[in-house]
Amino acid sequence: MRALYFDGNLHYQADTRTPQPPSGEALIRTKLAGICNTDLEIMRGYMGFKGILGHEFVGVVERADHAPAWVGQRVVGEINAYCGECATCRRGDPTQCPYRNTLGIDRRDGTMADYFTLPIKLLYPVPASIPDHWAVFTEPLAAACQIIEQVHLRPTDRVILLGDGKLGLLIAQVLQLTGCDLLVIGRHAGKLELLARRGIKTQLAGAPVEPGADVVVEATGSAEGFATARSLVRPRGTLVLKSTFHGDVSLNLSMVVVDEITLIGSRCGPFPAALQLLEQRLVEVEPLIHATFSLADGLTAFDKAGAPGVLKVLLSVD
Amino acid sequence: MRALYFDGNLHYQADTRTPQPPSGEALIRTKLAGICNTDLEIMRGYMGFKGILGHEFVGVVERADHAPAWVGQRVVGEINAYCGECATCRRGDPTQCPYRNTLGIDRRDGTMADYFTLPIKLLYPVPASIPDHWAVFTEPLAAACQIIEQVHLRPTDRVILLGDGKLGLLIAQVLQLTGCDLLVIGRHAGKLELLARRGIKTQLAGAPVEPGADVVVEATGSAEGFATARSLVRPRGTLVLKSTFHGDVSLNLSMVVVDEITLIGSRCGPFPAALQLLEQRLVEVEPLIHATFSLADGLTAFDKAGAPGVLKVLLSVD
Repeated sequence: MRALYFDGNLHYQADTRTPQPPSGEALIRTKLAGICNTDLEIMRGYMGFKGILGHEFVGVVERADHAPAWVGQRVVGEINAYCGECATCRRGDPTQCPYRNTLGIDRRDGTMADYFTLPIKLLYPVPASIPDHWAVFTEPLAAACQIIEQVHLRPTDRVILLGDGKLGLLIAQVLQLTGCDLLVIGRHAGKLELLARRGIKTQLAGAPVEPGADVVVEATGSAEGFATARSLVRPRGTLVLKSTFHGDVSLNLSMVVVDEITLIGSRCGPFPAALQLLEQRLVEVEPLIHATFSLADGLTAFDKAGAPGVLKVLLSVD
Repeated sequence: MRALYFDGNLHYQADTRTPQPPSGEALIRTKLAGICNTDLEIMRGYMGFKGILGHEFVGVVERADHAPAWVGQRVVGEINAYCGECATCRRGDPTQCPYRNTLGIDRRDGTMADYFTLPIKLLYPVPASIPDHWAVFTEPLAAACQIIEQVHLRPTDRVILLGDGKLGLLIAQVLQLTGCDLLVIGRHAGKLELLARRGIKTQLAGAPVEPGADVVVEATGSAEGFATARSLVRPRGTLVLKSTFHGDVSLNLSMVVVDEITLIGSRCGPFPAALQLLEQRLVEVEPLIHATFSLADGLTAFDKAGAPGVLKVLLSVD
């Protein structure tokens, strides 16, 4: 089969072996795969991953031994392959399972191939009313929804979101649904315009901002975003961290203590919530698609995805 | 009057002018003042404070214009002199008032003197059953109580406390009251023994520790404590930060995101709660007293307080 393989460099391989699903896993034929900022960070060394890239997908189940009802089903899937038996899983935190591997991120080949395998327990059927090019956003939209799982946002809260990237534009739409007083700060007038059209207040980075927000969400994807976020949150406020990047950040922890800030790391989120928002058309993903490339043009697609100002680049695997 | 004055160096001054209480403030005669780790950090540059040191005290109200009922009352007092009118105060977070100054820490002369002034609204009468040398612990004990204001600890939680210093020993006793599965890790066998006597599990730093705690409280007072705390908290766990120190810490924020850790800065706490614990004898402070010096011996007292392994040093101002 064809695949995009990363081993320090990215390769398009036309003759990769088609995987055999282990017990409990389905063989899935990829329809669309999305390029995420995490994929670009992996190419800079994040997680030390080697293998087939990709964790965003919509596909069709080709084979599912002992679970034939899934065959032919159009699906999306969670990315953390958890054990289901350890204390963390049994506590109800399977995405944090210490024995997990992660689709296209950590010791599990990903979705940028004709086929991949994934545990059946991670799959969700896609409602017929959601087209493929929306469904492929389920995983990042779930990550956006994770914020409202972790923090109770109220219409009385003043919230600042930093970042107008792919994830930021999804987060903004999810936060808007809470009725909070939301301001999105980004670097790209064109991206912010997508939000302004939906009635979301936006502002270009660099312009003065009233600090003292109840909640600040950091989704710039860069280390610099943290310092800005820290300066905008009020004492006893909450700072939600969404960015993963390679490297450390220097931090004055004493000021976190003095101001009694709560920092919350936020990662993968609930797929059912994301599918529901897509089905109810409460979140719009189509304007986020910058371009769609064939898998064979994967290297070009990655170049494009890494260029400044580019939003979602999809890979069509047909 | 006599005072311990800090201007980059610490001086004992016998001829300082006695302060005149501004409107709304009381003139308080100090009975006992405690030396806190924050005082030692101030001497290393923290907060850039210049003035009379000291924020822990028990004293007697000498003068309180328009509030004569307070005169002669034995009192303890909160240390953040807030405005009461800004949005932060009106929201119910007066200890975070952006217009506050702080007793002996930030633009307000402190308690290590014959007299000092403090807004009457910050004072609490000390019940007769609490002796002076217990009452002087009200402020740090309130800071310990702040943790259980911010985090709901349950008997089913596994909690690790790092630090067996003055604050750590108070925090340990407060945490024990929640019934949680508590382990205290410290560097001084003698200090840990004070806790072990109360049935608290303790361990010397360096010995292996089972990681994966639900909650880790960092109260070592040092930058190194943070890395240890980070390594011991479970994914989706909570890390409470109690240490203030001069300088920054380098931090892998991506791992905070991936593990979805919640970091909570925790500072000053509720005085009524602390007085109640003292009155009900639920917390024992007396074994924490290492020595009591007269104010005139203040420089010796600070040398002693800064020595390794020393617990609370008190200044008697009679």
